[in-house]
Amino acid sequence: MTPESFRLAGHELIDWISDYRNNLDQHPVRAQVAPGDIRGSLPSSAPELPESLASVVADLDKIVVPGITQVQHPMHYGWFPSNASLASVLGDIASSGLGTLGISWESCPALTEVEEVVCDWMRQLTGLSAQWEGTIHDTASTACLTALILAREKASNYAEMGAGLQGQENPLVIYTTSQAHSSITKAALLAGYGKENIRMIDVDPSTYGMSPRALREGIEEDLKLGRKPAAIIASVGSTGVTAIDPVDELSIISNEYDIWLHVDAAMAGSAMLLEECRFMWEGVEQSDSISWNPHKWMGTILDCSLFYVKDPEHLIRVMSTNPSYLRSAVDGEVTQYRDWGIPLGRRFRGLKLWFHLRLDGVEAIRQRIRRDLENTRWLADQIEQTENWKVVAPVTLQTVCVRHEPGNLSGEDLDKHTLNWVDAINRSGEAFMSPSIHDGLWMVRISVGVESTEREHLERLWALIQNTVIDID
Amino acid sequence: MTPESFRLAGHELIDWISDYRNNLDQHPVRAQVAPGDIRGSLPSSAPELPESLASVVADLDKIVVPGITQVQHPMHYGWFPSNASLASVLGDIASSGLGTLGISWESCPALTEVEEVVCDWMRQLTGLSAQWEGTIHDTASTACLTALILAREKASNYAEMGAGLQGQENPLVIYTTSQAHSSITKAALLAGYGKENIRMIDVDPSTYGMSPRALREGIEEDLKLGRKPAAIIASVGSTGVTAIDPVDELSIISNEYDIWLHVDAAMAGSAMLLEECRFMWEGVEQSDSISWNPHKWMGTILDCSLFYVKDPEHLIRVMSTNPSYLRSAVDGEVTQYRDWGIPLGRRFRGLKLWFHLRLDGVEAIRQRIRRDLENTRWLADQIEQTENWKVVAPVTLQTVCVRHEPGNLSGEDLDKHTLNWVDAINRSGEAFMSPSIHDGLWMVRISVGVESTEREHLERLWALIQNTVIDID
Repeated sequence: MTPESFRLAGHELIDWISDYRNNLDQHPVRAQVAPGDIRGSLPSSAPELPESLASVVADLDKIVVPGITQVQHPMHYGWFPSNASLASVLGDIASSGLGTLGISWESCPALTEVEEVVCDWMRQLTGLSAQWEGTIHDTASTACLTALILAREKASNYAEMGAGLQGQENPLVIYTTSQAHSSITKAALLAGYGKENIRMIDVDPSTYGMSPRALREGIEEDLKLGRKPAAIIASVGSTGVTAIDPVDELSIISNEYDIWLHVDAAMAGSAMLLEECRFMWEGVEQSDSISWNPHKWMGTILDCSLFYVKDPEHLIRVMSTNPSYLRSAVDGEVTQYRDWGIPLGRRFRGLKLWFHLRLDGVEAIRQRIRRDLENTRWLADQIEQTENWKVVAPVTLQTVCVRHEPGNLSGEDLDKHTLNWVDAINRSGEAFMSPSIHDGLWMVRISVGVESTEREHLERLWALIQNTVIDID
Repeated sequence: MTPESFRLAGHELIDWISDYRNNLDQHPVRAQVAPGDIRGSLPSSAPELPESLASVVADLDKIVVPGITQVQHPMHYGWFPSNASLASVLGDIASSGLGTLGISWESCPALTEVEEVVCDWMRQLTGLSAQWEGTIHDTASTACLTALILAREKASNYAEMGAGLQGQENPLVIYTTSQAHSSITKAALLAGYGKENIRMIDVDPSTYGMSPRALREGIEEDLKLGRKPAAIIASVGSTGVTAIDPVDELSIISNEYDIWLHVDAAMAGSAMLLEECRFMWEGVEQSDSISWNPHKWMGTILDCSLFYVKDPEHLIRVMSTNPSYLRSAVDGEVTQYRDWGIPLGRRFRGLKLWFHLRLDGVEAIRQRIRRDLENTRWLADQIEQTENWKVVAPVTLQTVCVRHEPGNLSGEDLDKHTLNWVDAINRSGEAFMSPSIHDGLWMVRISVGVESTEREHLERLWALIQNTVIDID
């Protein structure tokens, strides 16, 4: 395809995207397709000859769009806000159009240095000190895996250069809680620690945050058993109930025992743009690594997960490769991001943050986050004031965990009732929420924070929920 | 930003991209900036208030473009062809515009099923049998790490569910060669094997492919030492000299000893679109996993690395997570790609392959690859026929490894001479090639395969090389 045909096709596609975004709230929130529907609508093999853009775009309308759960829909309250702000989409489009290659500073100095700059902008915007240096990973899962590998190599004195984990005499242990994201257990397994070396520390029953006392007991017990504590993962805004681990208290323990402390603020990181929220990760300066996702609430399109460390030298020692064909005269003077993560090749991801921050401006992003905090508080108040409705976990950020508990139901019957009403709503396509198990019972997470969700949408949601419960009874 | 302002901005940006691509060959191939130049041109903190698209685009022109090594330039012969075909760019733009979330089938059924379909299209196009199922990873580095974790868990009988690698009594060993990509050693270190458990097998001195005899000897020796062979990584089109490991012979050994065989065809995979090239990975059907990068020579924009396995059940057992908030009624009927790799959240990557294959058509892609093979052969012939010029490794694909060897130079002097002439060309901005160490001496890799590189560009390159050598003498 020539640049001139691209120009024509690109204009068509931009119009299509703009129309799609304009009319997004006319689609059902949850995709209404059955397994295999989309696969079955597509040809079983690739076309030998070129097709027109018109036919591809027609298939976007006919096949793809009905197969999308509309996470940009103002009535989407599932999982977490996965905003793809149009300002950041433009940055993504610029990145695609440029078609750069990031395998070394030399392969695209701009890619490296814009990433350095926007990571530093984000550092300042979240109140972190200048001791932190950052990069962009695809997701917090990858950032967490990287952190656990850094912890492993620190605790084993760079075993990777010898027998690896296979030579480890005192088993390395990591500490987290049942509330932490599933990617933390996964990362520990992938990094080779083994499931029996993941210690789930008790949480405070009122906040669901990690209990520092229980952590200390766990560490002491492991030391007595000849095991070596390697990493503590603190969640700031856990997936289920946005619980906040007490980073300040955990950091005292991590420093005392010289254990790597990774702060997983995937969800809450966006709120750190607001000074009034930063108490939530008090103590973060004493941790060893931090990750959070602008591609969630803040709204820089996926994939954009920030990863900060205080000691890049350790990071580079663990993750570096230096084959001859990548060496250049400027090595040592520049950042080689290939040594900051798993993949060698990188997209120009800095552009989406660059465009997002510049075209929207920071103040507008902060205002939107404040709006969501207020709206969430409003919704929680409505629920708390209504008979038989319960907010089942503290509302720390933008998630309200609810249950309808008519007096006559408990246990399995209550679970059935919960799943019934949420499923009725999700099936209707009018709104979408994620049910989740909490303290052994199903509840419904209402995750607020889509860019287009205003107070009126929450009012509509709350009415819909109450009416649905009446209808199914 | 509203969809209507996005429409206006999007059109501007498409025009900018089209102009940039049209005039790309007027930029120096290698970026002419010094470390810190770009960082120093950018504000040290993010803007509070929105800026106009015009000011961002002006900075693209003034700051970003001069900082790009133009890998889409027809005179780019560095590293490897990193084509970003404009058809695939449109797919990437569609993906960004849609702003979907891939964390489960339910979060975007279309994302999952289009990916399934295009991976199957690519399977057929490369002549693989229906026993293979695929997914898209960001890079071959990540695919290789996944493969080595799969191998580790198979050889250790799922140690991850117990003590992990830390409980391994017989150290697991992996086998590769000095020619393999740096990401393989990196993956082995990240997966916890340890450097001393990576065995570099001798290569055949004429082909630089792994010696099956040496592999067998290595395995036998390890078994005697009580070590457990876990994985063989076969390179098809190695990074330095595009060497081809004899997959058929290696697969016989891997099956005999029950060792995981991963085929890394990152570079050569594109050539497998041509039936006449498939002898290069003869035996691939007997391997356990395969990865290759459409984002190289084939030209689907980065990041797009295919990863195929024969036993998805094993893959899912090793990589799966199933937290309650991600469970749905259709589990078991659908593919959950979160269990096929490291990250939980995924972009709609299938679209770039879908657009690329449909808008360009397979036949045109095949023709381009054939053109490059012919042009490469032509260049190698010119070099071989010229006095004092030497092609220093077999030309298997689209890479010619050359050295100018005037009779009076050897050793360090020859190295100096080689680095001198290639550096003079790279500095000039007229063409770009990667020097690399081969058999202990520097040589220059001419990696052919940029979409816009025609015979005339190779003629120009060959004249430029010869003139430069004359000039610096």
